[in-house]
Amino acid sequence: MPSGIGSDRMAEGAFPFAIRQRVRFAETDLQGVVYYANYLVYAEVGRIAYLRHLGIDYQDLVRRELDFTIGEATVRYHSALRFDDEFDIRVRVGALRRVSWTFEYTVERADGLRCADMSTVQVILSRPAFKAARIPEDLLETLRAAS
Amino acid sequence: MPSGIGSDRMAEGAFPFAIRQRVRFAETDLQGVVYYANYLVYAEVGRIAYLRHLGIDYQDLVRRELDFTIGEATVRYHSALRFDDEFDIRVRVGALRRVSWTFEYTVERADGLRCADMSTVQVILSRPAFKAARIPEDLLETLRAAS
Amino acid sequence: MPSGIGSDRMAEGAFPFAIRQRVRFAETDLQGVVYYANYLVYAEVGRIAYLRHLGIDYQDLVRRELDFTIGEATVRYHSALRFDDEFDIRVRVGALRRVSWTFEYTVERADGLRCADMSTVQVILSRPAFKAARIPEDLLETLRAAS
Amino acid sequence: MPSGIGSDRMAEGAFPFAIRQRVRFAETDLQGVVYYANYLVYAEVGRIAYLRHLGIDYQDLVRRELDFTIGEATVRYHSALRFDDEFDIRVRVGALRRVSWTFEYTVERADGLRCADMSTVQVILSRPAFKAARIPEDLLETLRAAS
Repeated sequence: MPSGIGSDRMAEGAFPFAIRQRVRFAETDLQGVVYYANYLVYAEVGRIAYLRHLGIDYQDLVRRELDFTIGEATVRYHSALRFDDEFDIRVRVGALRRVSWTFEYTVERADGLRCADMSTVQVILSRPAFKAARIPEDLLETLRAAS
Repeated sequence: MPSGIGSDRMAEGAFPFAIRQRVRFAETDLQGVVYYANYLVYAEVGRIAYLRHLGIDYQDLVRRELDFTIGEATVRYHSALRFDDEFDIRVRVGALRRVSWTFEYTVERADGLRCADMSTVQVILSRPAFKAARIPEDLLETLRAAS
Repeated sequence: MPSGIGSDRMAEGAFPFAIRQRVRFAETDLQGVVYYANYLVYAEVGRIAYLRHLGIDYQDLVRRELDFTIGEATVRYHSALRFDDEFDIRVRVGALRRVSWTFEYTVERADGLRCADMSTVQVILSRPAFKAARIPEDLLETLRAAS
Repeated sequence: MPSGIGSDRMAEGAFPFAIRQRVRFAETDLQGVVYYANYLVYAEVGRIAYLRHLGIDYQDLVRRELDFTIGEATVRYHSALRFDDEFDIRVRVGALRRVSWTFEYTVERADGLRCADMSTVQVILSRPAFKAARIPEDLLETLRAAS
């Protein structure tokens, strides 16, 4: 990994939320480490858990004819996680925009080793057309208060 | 596991259909071989390709307010597939019943090494209740002709 | 699901161990339910957690030049799990043989709905040849005591 | 996410290589589209196929006590792929550096609809220490000729 990657983009600062997981056999690959795409699965686990923690329920959004999709995702890999490792997925709100917002994540092995940083851009959609829509005011308030 | 499953169940005989695939890095695990659950993904790839070959389109079933689900799945593992191996998924119709039928599969490495046998039981559902339903006559005819 | 499947094969009886999980978005498919192959991932999660609970560490086996592979796996599907559902994976020891043993599993939604039963046959291998080997005496004792 | 990423980064230009795939049921999620992390699996499929096309064999690298890992991965999502869609994964060499290089990808549905762009940074490692190493001269030449 080229040195210096990441530190500029992922501003230092606290992550207000974490969820602990354990690496599954299914998530490893022949190099003996977690397969690179699975960090986006970990981001999803962190994202959904953090939204629930904030009182935002995905099913409730759907009932309001809203949905969200991911517009962009990035992963920076620092150290490998291995089978059976326990790790924390930390999440925080990044930039808030009119129809989208960013979540930033870091994955740390239980002993504190930093394994990866991720970011995802969520885009709010209105159903059933699945067109980009303004973030509803209550969700925006919740995200703003959390950021 | 009850003894005797497999060798009697999977009667010897020809497989009329095959589709070739190549093992993805994503499909391996830390033992350097294809992760065991992925043989059911291979069964799905074979099943969908064989149904298409028989002129049965999944989307068309859905348009007719039908769907199917898997009621039972079995895998017997013989030899490991490794990253980048080419292999054939062979499929045939097994038992035909009123609301369900069996597909039988074999996975062979390109050089003929037998890697796994699978079977799945498909159960026809009527939408939107998703209740078990009779196999429609045209589908039954197609499956009967293929078996 | 044809009625009657399963009850004969999966003898009634207590499961001494359970681990709770929550359905990930990644684990669902276009039918809105958990993709059928992922029940074998759930079996793996239950198996590894139960082995740890019994004091059997996978890495320790490897250090002793042993390993295990899955020789056969079966899933019976009863009711669908959906995104965000909490569920318990219950595990118990089934048949014990010279080079292999069976684990039996049941997946229950948190409210007690029975979703699936699984079984897997573990085969002990000696490294580096990866040939089937006798179950070591201490492991056999542990499994016998648990069954 | 810093604004402007993507359109400037992913310069317009031809992709010299493509591999066609078909969306598996396993790759979809409850929104009825390909789950977002699976675009990194598609990138892997494109990357390995392109390397093979260039005469670079992963196993051969390993035999030379080299390996590579992914240091960074990005996906930008444009339009959703659905079950059974055929699509092309196009790949090209991006920036070449001392110990790493970039691959750029685009995923297009068979009718030409642009679904996603990805990029990955490959970092060469020397075994068994798995430390970053210079790209070997022959690999560098091959990548330079392809870019």
